[in-house]
Order: sequence, then C-alpha cells, then structure tokens
Amino acid sequence: MSPIKKHAKVEEPKNSWITYRPEIKVLDCTIRDGGLINDHQFGDEFVRAVYDTCAAAGVDYMEMGYKASKRVFSRADHGPWKFCDEDDLRRMVGDQPHPDLKLCVMADAERTDYHEDILPKEQSVLNCIRVATYIHQIPTAVDMIQDAHDKGYETTCNIMAVSAVREHELREALAALTKSPVEVIYVVDSYGSLYSEQVRDLVHLYRRAIEGTGKELGIHTHNNQQLAFANTIEAVILGVNRLDATINGFGRGAGNCPMELLLGFLRNPKFDQRPVIECIVKNFLPLAKKLDWGYSIPYMISGQLNRHPREAMELRESHRKDDYLAFYDRMME
Amino acid sequence: MSPIKKHAKVEEPKNSWITYRPEIKVLDCTIRDGGLINDHQFGDEFVRAVYDTCAAAGVDYMEMGYKASKRVFSRADHGPWKFCDEDDLRRMVGDQPHPDLKLCVMADAERTDYHEDILPKEQSVLNCIRVATYIHQIPTAVDMIQDAHDKGYETTCNIMAVSAVREHELREALAALTKSPVEVIYVVDSYGSLYSEQVRDLVHLYRRAIEGTGKELGIHTHNNQQLAFANTIEAVILGVNRLDATINGFGRGAGNCPMELLLGFLRNPKFDQRPVIECIVKNFLPLAKKLDWGYSIPYMISGQLNRHPREAMELRESHRKDDYLAFYDRMME
Repeated sequence: MSPIKKHAKVEEPKNSWITYRPEIKVLDCTIRDGGLINDHQFGDEFVRAVYDTCAAAGVDYMEMGYKASKRVFSRADHGPWKFCDEDDLRRMVGDQPHPDLKLCVMADAERTDYHEDILPKEQSVLNCIRVATYIHQIPTAVDMIQDAHDKGYETTCNIMAVSAVREHELREALAALTKSPVEVIYVVDSYGSLYSEQVRDLVHLYRRAIEGTGKELGIHTHNNQQLAFANTIEAVILGVNRLDATINGFGRGAGNCPMELLLGFLRNPKFDQRPVIECIVKNFLPLAKKLDWGYSIPYMISGQLNRHPREAMELRESHRKDDYLAFYDRMME
Repeated sequence: MSPIKKHAKVEEPKNSWITYRPEIKVLDCTIRDGGLINDHQFGDEFVRAVYDTCAAAGVDYMEMGYKASKRVFSRADHGPWKFCDEDDLRRMVGDQPHPDLKLCVMADAERTDYHEDILPKEQSVLNCIRVATYIHQIPTAVDMIQDAHDKGYETTCNIMAVSAVREHELREALAALTKSPVEVIYVVDSYGSLYSEQVRDLVHLYRRAIEGTGKELGIHTHNNQQLAFANTIEAVILGVNRLDATINGFGRGAGNCPMELLLGFLRNPKFDQRPVIECIVKNFLPLAKKLDWGYSIPYMISGQLNRHPREAMELRESHRKDDYLAFYDRMME
C-alpha cells in the first residue's frame, strides 16, 4: 500500500535479535490446510511423519484436520482428516503422545456438529479447538467457542476473509468474540491479498478490541504474493505471538507461511529447522510431483484482486494450468 | 529480526494507496542478473522480447548486461550481454528505440576497462552506467562514476554484500560516494539475507549519508527467503524511489524481486502488468525447463547464513540438486 508516502518517519530500531520472545508459539497446519488440496486423503504414514517432525522441531501445536459434519461431508469423498474421529487421532499419536506438542482441530462454523462430535476434553487427545468463522457466522462461532471451552479445551478463533469485510462490522465481530472465553483471535489473510501495512492496520484493530482481556493475537497467512512469511514477520514485530505455518509452505492454492523459513527466523533455541528440512526431502518433494501448491501467477492474480483462490485452483488443476494470460484476461473482465 | 520486541509502538498508518508516488522508477535487470545463470548466452529474440515487454509495461530502465573487460572474460565463454558492445545494443533496440525506456549496463569495479569500453554518451544508446562495487573497491568505483559522469551518463552505484560489512566502514564508503557525482545509491541484499528491519536500518543509514545532496536511494533484493518483494515494498514505504526487479523473478540463485508482483503493487497507471504476464508465458515458462532459478531450500539456507549463494548454485546444478539435508549439514559444519 501507500507508495505515496514520502520518507515516512519510522522510529529508530532497537535491534536485539540475539534474544527472543518466549511467548511466541508456532502452530503447524500442514495436514489441515494441505488437506484442502486432496480432500484430506493422506495416508497414516504421511500424517505420522508430520507429527513426528513437529515434535522434533519444537513446534507447539499441530492441527490434525477438520472436525467436519458427516451430514454435510461424506466419508466416501473425504479422508479421515476431514473428520478427525478420536480413533483416527489416537492411531496417529499412539499411546505415548509427544509431551510438548499440543493437538488441535479446526471446526468450521455451521459445518460442524460440535455438540455431538467434540468430545469432553478428558475423552480426547486434543488440547485445543480452533473455530473458523465468516463474519456473518459470529453468533454460531461464539456458541462453538463456549461449548469447547465448557468441555475443557483451549479455544481460538479465525475470522476468515477479513480483507473483504467492512471495518465497523469487523469491530462488532471482535467485540462479540472478546466477550467469549476464546483465548486467541487470528488475523487471517484468506486470499493472500494483504500487504504489510494492511497487516499492521488489522493487528492494531484487533489489539484495540482485546485490550485488557488477556487474550492473545495470532496470524495466518497465504502466499499468493510471496508475502506469507514477510507478513508473519511483520505480525511478530507488532507483538503477535501465535504463528501458523506449514511444512514446505504446503496448503491450499499458493500455500502458507513455510515452517522452515519461520523456524530459521525465530531465535528460541527450542526450535530446530533440521527435522523440517528432512521431512521435506522425504515426504514433500515426492508429493510435489503429484499435487500442485505454492506461488504461481494465477494465485498472484487472485490475491491482488482480493478474491478467493477458487478459479486459480481450477486453472492449476486443468490441462491449461500455465495459460496465465487467458486467466488474467478473464479475471480482469 | 528482533522477535523479542513486545508490542512495538508503531505510528498510526496514513493509508492512501489509492494514489501513488510519481518519483518511483522501476529498473528491469532480467538480462543482467539472469545472465549470471547462463553466462549471458541469450539469443537476440529473447533479449528483444524482454526489451519490448519492458517498454510495453511502462518500466523506466532496462539493464542490458555487463560491460565486462575482455581481458578478464573471454568471448568464447560468455554471450554478448557480458560485454554489451555498442553494435550488439543497437541490434536489439533498432533504429527507433522506445522513447520512454532508458538503457543501462552494469560495470563491475576492477573488472571493467571503463576508460576504453564506455563510449562518450553521444556515441551510445545507453543512458546510464550502474557501477557495482565491493566495499574495498570504493576508490575505483568513485573513479568509474566520475568517468561515466564526465562522458555524459546518469550514474548509479550498487555497494554489494553490505550484509557482511561493518557499519562504520559502510559509513565511510557512503561518505566517499556522496562526494562523487553518483545520482542513485542502491541498498543491495546480495545474499538474500536481510529481514525487513535490517532493510529499514540500512535505508536509514544510507539516507543520513545522502541527506541534502539531492541523490536518490534504490533497492535491489534477492529471494532466498521469499522476502525479495516484501523487502522492496518495505523500502518503498521508507521512501526509496528506485526499484530493481526482474521478469518472473529471473536471476542468479533464488532470483530477484518479481516484476509482475511489483507492478501489481505500484499504482502509477503508466505501469501495465499484462505484457509481463504474456512474456512469462511465452519466454520464461519454456526457459524454466532448462535453467534453475527461484526460491528453494538450499538458497534459503545460504541466505539465512548470510553467505554467497555459490555452494547452493553448485548443488542445484548437480545431480544431487534436491539433497537438501546433506547440504544443510555441510553448511552448518
């Protein structure tokens, strides 16, 4: 934004990158966001490899998938990580789950039978329920948060597609959320359309909303404009402590903030980049021969237009996947 | 950097991205920086396609290659764009050069016979000489700048590898340069190692040096950490007006700031993204089947270690190009 600002005054930096901020927690959403590419059809071995990698890398949370309604989504069309049944989760983490890696799932507002499908905490290996909501579903999201909180879970909330939401409506949504027991509210760049200054504006807006509540802010980015990592860093500089990333930037469309870049940036010695690089070589380079993800021109175009990556994904899955110019002309119509 | 800063105070944004800063000028260095991948062995048709694309896209400057010494580099090993003889340049731009696209070449300190090989301006289609220098070559660079200036050219200077230079030495170099007639000094992230806060520190340092001289600042980034575009935006926000980019992010190693992203970000209506996308489809997608460039894990590693991409390039050109883990272990030794 604002290429017009002349010599913007910026305060003198206080460099101290030698140290780190221990409050920062990293969440891996490789299987959950990546599952949107292949309808969550991952084999057990792949999911277990990601799980073990997260544990070895010192990642704080791993998101195993969605807790989707079986009335809305069929088992025939989706792999187990669309539903994250307790049995499937336990098959992955075994009898001795890694003690420092918390587990979470995403629960979409209006697409989750949360009263039935989310078990009381003491019956589950899950630690945290991440409620995802569009702005018009906030009342449902608040009810889901309350339900999960009452069942004993940590709770977080992703308000999706905020780049297409009016500011005063977003303020109202945040006001409603701050009255709920939610612990973390995420700034989510669903369309990969945000520039650093917009991230800053949103972080300020969210911070004002949660001021004095003890809640935390999180950031979830997409890489349509090669800004997923940069915008995550920007949020860190602004004091955001909960960071989403995926191994090899895996994720729907242009993908997410790459875990390997993020761990290379964070200075907390508990993080280790090496297991992530190992996992990429073993599991993601072979996968990249079968699935398409990561930055390409069609995703850049949908990001710049602040639009859902739907059309760009369709193009990339078609035999015309590299026909960028026709796609550009169609999107600009 | 500085993940330790807590809730850094940031001034309220003055959003005005609807308008633009007319002083901003974009330079295409596709052929020059990309020539480092293939020893400048581009066919005429390819160079002409880039030239016509730059003109159609409203780009302000195009860098045609190097003005390298024929005593140091042999014609047998390098294509014409290593030397940019006047005849070769004229063969590209024809009798009627695009009136709004200025031409430049890069002249490396100590590797250019500048007294002989850089013609007086009135005998050349070139408008601008870009002197590139390491810190220890500054006296030579200053002499080259003076020579080019006296011959009638615009002049700019890239101080390379500043991420590995001590601050007080950099200050001395800048002081020497500001006494020269150079018009633009570039902040150059040779190793793709800089985070946004380091870009900011450098821009502040450079700005203090040129204050009151009427000189401009420029930015030249590399994409080792997927930060080339983000760091260019950061520089724009800080008031930097001269921006380097390449079509499809083409360039040595991890490549450069992608022109298509940059033009999508800048609001000046003179810029047009469409010819760049067209050129990518026609000329760069086929090239990507033959040459390796752009972000990959080995470049991330060399960037994070603040090292020349030499070893990473060697790996990517070898049959072990995807053996990231062995490379990581070797680099960490």
